[in-house]
Amino acid sequence: MKEFELIRRYFTEQIVKRKDVYLGIGDDCALVTPGERQHIAVTTDTLVAGVHFPLNTSPRAIGHKSIAVNLSDLAAMGAEPSWVSLALTLPDIDENWIKEFCLGVFDLCEFYNVQLIGGDTTQGPLSITVTAQGQIPFEQHISRSGAKAGEWLYVTGEIGGAALALQHIQGKVKVAAKYQQEIQKRLDFPIARVLAGQALRKYATSAIDLSDGLVADLAHICHASGVGANIVLDALPLPAALSDTVGIDAAYDIALEGGDDYELLFSVTEDNRVGMETALANTGNKITCIGQLNGSGKITTTLNKKAVNIKVQSYQHFSDTPPNK
Amino acid sequence: MKEFELIRRYFTEQIVKRKDVYLGIGDDCALVTPGERQHIAVTTDTLVAGVHFPLNTSPRAIGHKSIAVNLSDLAAMGAEPSWVSLALTLPDIDENWIKEFCLGVFDLCEFYNVQLIGGDTTQGPLSITVTAQGQIPFEQHISRSGAKAGEWLYVTGEIGGAALALQHIQGKVKVAAKYQQEIQKRLDFPIARVLAGQALRKYATSAIDLSDGLVADLAHICHASGVGANIVLDALPLPAALSDTVGIDAAYDIALEGGDDYELLFSVTEDNRVGMETALANTGNKITCIGQLNGSGKITTTLNKKAVNIKVQSYQHFSDTPPNK
Repeated sequence: MKEFELIRRYFTEQIVKRKDVYLGIGDDCALVTPGERQHIAVTTDTLVAGVHFPLNTSPRAIGHKSIAVNLSDLAAMGAEPSWVSLALTLPDIDENWIKEFCLGVFDLCEFYNVQLIGGDTTQGPLSITVTAQGQIPFEQHISRSGAKAGEWLYVTGEIGGAALALQHIQGKVKVAAKYQQEIQKRLDFPIARVLAGQALRKYATSAIDLSDGLVADLAHICHASGVGANIVLDALPLPAALSDTVGIDAAYDIALEGGDDYELLFSVTEDNRVGMETALANTGNKITCIGQLNGSGKITTTLNKKAVNIKVQSYQHFSDTPPNK
Repeated sequence: MKEFELIRRYFTEQIVKRKDVYLGIGDDCALVTPGERQHIAVTTDTLVAGVHFPLNTSPRAIGHKSIAVNLSDLAAMGAEPSWVSLALTLPDIDENWIKEFCLGVFDLCEFYNVQLIGGDTTQGPLSITVTAQGQIPFEQHISRSGAKAGEWLYVTGEIGGAALALQHIQGKVKVAAKYQQEIQKRLDFPIARVLAGQALRKYATSAIDLSDGLVADLAHICHASGVGANIVLDALPLPAALSDTVGIDAAYDIALEGGDDYELLFSVTEDNRVGMETALANTGNKITCIGQLNGSGKITTTLNKKAVNIKVQSYQHFSDTPPNK
């Protein structure tokens, strides 16, 4: 029982107390009270050690990432994050590990005023499943299916940094010392674009978060919306570390293929570009127009206004060799 | 990609289409629309292979159980189940396994009109995390903390059957052939007392579902409510298979200590006994009064109206030897 008390203490020591949580951790269920005329957005993501993060990832980073990847899904719908449930499977109890893990979880929850309302702790190989819930006023959500040919394609932040960090850890590339800390942070402490997502409610016709990679996630939008897209490679917002490490051509490949950036990819009509750019600037998010949607049903790329072929094989689960095993 | 399509096909082939699901599986989040003046009850439970079910459990039973244990938590609050999210971690893709697993999941979802609204499929050691959500009209939930001294303690169904099945599988006892199928079913296909839970909203002062064992779960009610309790051993509703296999004394121990029955344990005032018994009879649930709450702060047992000592060590995670590894 001592071990349970330990975990319970850490998980109930959160600062956030939302008014819409009627009953928090400690009973058979939590009870929450959604606002009037709000949809509840629900998303679930699992992180498995050795598959979704390298085995030597710090517990604080694991805690942060398990929340961030779910808040990122809420952001991509335009939802305001409200509540999370956390299922933690641990091989054994290590007080220091749990303490650090909770720091990662709660730093993020406090920043976004998200309350942990429940979960489960079980024994087994390390993995974390989080269900995050947010609220969106009726008719204001952003789906993957609303994009139309002719609209412009944007991303927040920079892309390819997380994939570069992973390749560095795997020994495939050698990132210069001056970049290592920054690049590691992109992989371990991704930023969920929560405020950007909410600001986009009025402007974006479609949105998705970049977890599988630019081409793979763009393909989801194209498929759901029935459109094609052209990506302007010269326009891609790449971290300096990326092109400095692998050269510009390989940098494009990594930016197209690499996952785990958790930036938002979204589409906007010509008429809404200025309004959107102003709204996003107010949230402190850098955005870049990286291409345009069309009716081709395919994803193409151009460089210096000339077509170039992409040879991208995006990450998928159940491949023979998981990326970071 | 083929494997993903396979999983997607099975998981989107559900029959249930609830009107309060605004957007189901297929986007970054699902969107649901709770009813007016309803609390949302949220619960999460993880099942790990070899810890929460024996490794040779059928996929259909695993699917059933992963949903049932969560619906059971909703039942214990008096909630009407509405939506589930399912995170499935699999060592590899086996089409037949997934098909059978989905049968177990969807049979139960269809029975209770619960819609699968999302989840995640990842590669790793077999485990399943389900987050289930239900709805309860304001002020009608049943918590663990409302019990008072003098009230009566009831359970639904029979208890000890699941623990007996586990002991049989582990070779600790030998259940007679005529009982084996029935007993195995109690372990593999537990019944969540969903209708009983909703019927109890008006009558029960506290409730919990029996997952950890009668004494352990009663201790949660006693702790949360600040009461003690006496269990009348002669009154315990035991399956015939239990006493026939191990004798009556050991049967009491197993009924007190064994988990996984997923029956409801609840308290009722003297004035509400008749009303509650009528309401529960209408839901087709057998109930049994097994004792009374008191102010002692302790859990005691009596047999033939004489006090007997209990030597119960209830299951807990993170013991050195998980029960069915």
